[in-house]
Amino acid sequence: MAQAIRILGLDPGLRKTGWGIITSEGTKLSFVACGCVESDGASPLSERLRQLHDGIARVIGSFDPDEVAVEETFVNRDPQSALKLGQARGIALVVPAIAGLSVAEYAANLVKKTVVGVGHADKKQVQAMIRVLLPKAETKSADAADALAVAICHSQHRGMRALVAQMRAAS
Amino acid sequence: MAQAIRILGLDPGLRKTGWGIITSEGTKLSFVACGCVESDGASPLSERLRQLHDGIARVIGSFDPDEVAVEETFVNRDPQSALKLGQARGIALVVPAIAGLSVAEYAANLVKKTVVGVGHADKKQVQAMIRVLLPKAETKSADAADALAVAICHSQHRGMRALVAQMRAAS
Repeated sequence: MAQAIRILGLDPGLRKTGWGIITSEGTKLSFVACGCVESDGASPLSERLRQLHDGIARVIGSFDPDEVAVEETFVNRDPQSALKLGQARGIALVVPAIAGLSVAEYAANLVKKTVVGVGHADKKQVQAMIRVLLPKAETKSADAADALAVAICHSQHRGMRALVAQMRAAS
Repeated sequence: MAQAIRILGLDPGLRKTGWGIITSEGTKLSFVACGCVESDGASPLSERLRQLHDGIARVIGSFDPDEVAVEETFVNRDPQSALKLGQARGIALVVPAIAGLSVAEYAANLVKKTVVGVGHADKKQVQAMIRVLLPKAETKSADAADALAVAICHSQHRGMRALVAQMRAAS
């Protein structure tokens, strides 16, 4: 019997970071919880990042995931926007690492390709597929749906990642 | 008599984050310590960010600064580089905030203008001025010198910042 693992998916953003928890047991996926961690736009940047840090740390503390997957947002915007997004991504990557969890990163296109079947799916298509794959999920926000999508993406790719890591270690 | 405060300056970078501690008492500046926190390029990104997090947290734990200043690096490069830098900056901003410290940000040009007198000074000019302003500083690396420069910049501007904050609170 396949071992059940609990996966936290994160879709980082400075204003809102989406999070979603699923369990994966063999080919079976189950919804656990999802939501958004928000930062207060009126606060100084360091304080906003602390709010994201505290929120993600609370999610990890509450749901005790085994593995974490973070979306590598496609950056085609100006460097200032990329810098801002990078700050939020830094927090999404470091909080699980501080908790001793391994963190996988997946390009947004791969997440969409895995969940919807095409790399250029829009947010509505992602939400529709989440409802099919995780019927019990209540995804009120697109960010939470995207976070569940990256968790599902990891559930599909983690076996291959583990194999590659084994082969590298052996070579 | 002016109160002595201890300032931590940080010059964030994914590979190397420079740090420098000074005390400021009225117009008198004194060198306390400086160095670099490095991340291992062979590690996954989340692990590298954790290394920066742990290093900065150790500096804060060891030297117990009152205030923190972080350099806002000028981003004229491609969005991918900006994203990478943003991740390191996110860590430099959040670690002091977690420790309950206020964090000021200063544009690189303002730091150079304050310390050297011109906004487009190069790294050697900054290092030369650090030797003048903080004769006891042993700045073996340019990153540590830049971090001391941002700490000095904060010592010169913090009075005005506090005044503006007071006026805003009163209005």
